[in-house]
Amino acid sequence: MKLLEQRIATDGVIKNGSIIKVDSFLNHQMDVNLYREIGEEFYRLFGNCGVTRILTIEASGIGIACVTAQFFDVPAVFAKKSKSRNIDGDMYTSSVESFTYGTTYQIMVAADYIKAGDKVLIIDDFLAKGNALLGLIDIVEKAGAEVAGCGIVIEKGFQEGGKILRSMGINLHSLAIIDSMDESGVVFRKQD
Amino acid sequence: MKLLEQRIATDGVIKNGSIIKVDSFLNHQMDVNLYREIGEEFYRLFGNCGVTRILTIEASGIGIACVTAQFFDVPAVFAKKSKSRNIDGDMYTSSVESFTYGTTYQIMVAADYIKAGDKVLIIDDFLAKGNALLGLIDIVEKAGAEVAGCGIVIEKGFQEGGKILRSMGINLHSLAIIDSMDESGVVFRKQD
Repeated sequence: MKLLEQRIATDGVIKNGSIIKVDSFLNHQMDVNLYREIGEEFYRLFGNCGVTRILTIEASGIGIACVTAQFFDVPAVFAKKSKSRNIDGDMYTSSVESFTYGTTYQIMVAADYIKAGDKVLIIDDFLAKGNALLGLIDIVEKAGAEVAGCGIVIEKGFQEGGKILRSMGINLHSLAIIDSMDESGVVFRKQD
Repeated sequence: MKLLEQRIATDGVIKNGSIIKVDSFLNHQMDVNLYREIGEEFYRLFGNCGVTRILTIEASGIGIACVTAQFFDVPAVFAKKSKSRNIDGDMYTSSVESFTYGTTYQIMVAADYIKAGDKVLIIDDFLAKGNALLGLIDIVEKAGAEVAGCGIVIEKGFQEGGKILRSMGINLHSLAIIDSMDESGVVFRKQD
């Protein structure tokens, strides 16, 4: 997605060679006009997959999932990372190892909000090692639902997540894939 | 907002007299069509306030803020609750006591994303004791910006947050105010 690649090149800030900060437009401050372009592109890519529900994970996936869900006209659901007092009843859970935080955490979705027969589009802002996405896929499968696809805004192509997911046969599209980056800039993978 | 009150009456689940679960449409599964109605109503209420930025807090405020920001055509920003490796640089912080979790946590916004001169609309899903909102107002003031208003989806009118904020002169609108509730149902405050 050209517009997104240009935005990453212009406003992304590279730290320590493997971290790219895009918090000026994607995951702290949120450019909702860009979000609409992202949602429209996800609809172009997954609009014919029979999606009945969009699933993401808190926190930075939520805004993208909501704006995208408007194009699909389906509900969005976010997996929660910790048990609050207000959640009870049956839940699907999975364990996720976080590269960013150096910890393992539980994610959970109330059983009412993913059902057998659902075709779930999983949306997230980043794909690196793929752990969060694998946890979300695990939850969809525990619910007896089907993964219609995974839509990622930025994939770090130099980490293994994309390769693992594609080798599993997941219908994965990343709007921008960074093959390499250093202080001088970002190299994107060519895509159709 | 009639549509919202009807939805709360139909799909809200009351627990222990003071907790109302609305996670089937508002803060776990997200009905983006309802979100659009909510965003449009916030625009009706605050559209003439010169809003330059929308501020919310993770996690359940994010989707509502993003959909609302589309009507205002301004960026949305969410305050983060814990320090991640990917945040650095100057930040505005405030302490918030959580009723739901029984803890005190820090919230933070990078200084780049709220500026002196900004007119900030603060959006959140719930208002109860008002602690999260007071923390967000504190951050706006630390940035030298102005609180244009606070837009809340559901206010628990039987808790003190709304009274405190209105007595401070905050331009607060809650789309539904619950004056009382018990196992038999919810009583909403009459509003224009």
